[in-house]
Amino acid sequence: MEKRLPADLGRPSAEAVKASEKLPLVLVLDSIRSALNVGSIFRTADAFAVERLVLCGITACPPHREIHKTALGSVETVAWSYSPDVVQALQGLRSEGYRVLAVEQVTTSVALHEFRPEAGARYAFILGNEVSGVSEAALAHCDGALEIPQFGAKHSLNVAVAAGIATWEFVRKHRLAGK
Amino acid sequence: MEKRLPADLGRPSAEAVKASEKLPLVLVLDSIRSALNVGSIFRTADAFAVERLVLCGITACPPHREIHKTALGSVETVAWSYSPDVVQALQGLRSEGYRVLAVEQVTTSVALHEFRPEAGARYAFILGNEVSGVSEAALAHCDGALEIPQFGAKHSLNVAVAAGIATWEFVRKHRLAGK
Repeated sequence: MEKRLPADLGRPSAEAVKASEKLPLVLVLDSIRSALNVGSIFRTADAFAVERLVLCGITACPPHREIHKTALGSVETVAWSYSPDVVQALQGLRSEGYRVLAVEQVTTSVALHEFRPEAGARYAFILGNEVSGVSEAALAHCDGALEIPQFGAKHSLNVAVAAGIATWEFVRKHRLAGK
Repeated sequence: MEKRLPADLGRPSAEAVKASEKLPLVLVLDSIRSALNVGSIFRTADAFAVERLVLCGITACPPHREIHKTALGSVETVAWSYSPDVVQALQGLRSEGYRVLAVEQVTTSVALHEFRPEAGARYAFILGNEVSGVSEAALAHCDGALEIPQFGAKHSLNVAVAAGIATWEFVRKHRLAGK
């Protein structure tokens, strides 16, 4: 069992990645305070070929030393935009036809493993602030919510970890379905 | 769509969590440099009721300010031990009957979504250093490896995100199978 060398990993160039087919998934970051979390989410977005990130509210934007420290180059390969007002961002996405889902523990959440993306549909997942979660204002403009089932005392995951798990689940069902 | 209040989340007490049924999964941290990543993995281990963590080599251990900052109390609910030598830790786990799998990109990796845990078996997943990954010494003592499929330019995820995704996949297949 030997490690695969970088040349064996079949990594495409930054240009090829930008032009390649993306997952029909946008991640909306609703006032994520930690630039380290933002950088880690950029890295996840690169790994899973997320369509783009929409950074909202107080979410730190590139260029930013701590984002670059954890994003490890993925700021160059992932499309992103900044929108000060998360509600406007969600209204824009919905008018473009995206299904907007909060990753949040709400009364009507669907358990993540029971989520069935509709064929041909495009989705936006909203990840919320480290302390307060997805804002009430944003929740009012969502089509629904996904909840990651948890079994511990804290019922809480780091937001970059939650983004990774939700995106992986989407990859599994959209890109790896039946495999 | 309203947020569920902490009282509605059905969070058990720290004592109840310690006594409750755990996932038959141990996470081995092979010289993880960042205490923030270690804290985030503690939080994931609480959320998914991981059996225990084995911290090895240079991995920071509690009590540690930065672990506590990101672990948010989960240091109190997750069983853990420290083992200076990762190889000894893996030998111990294998002698106890655990199947030891590296989360790593190696020549013989199985894609994460194709992993089928054996009924009744207990597993240990090894997560490696942020720069060098799972050490060659540790790889020599693994039963196999799991790889998270990736489609970007970087072929790399933050280690706490990778731990979260691999653990979620185990939860799905072990605890939520058929649901």
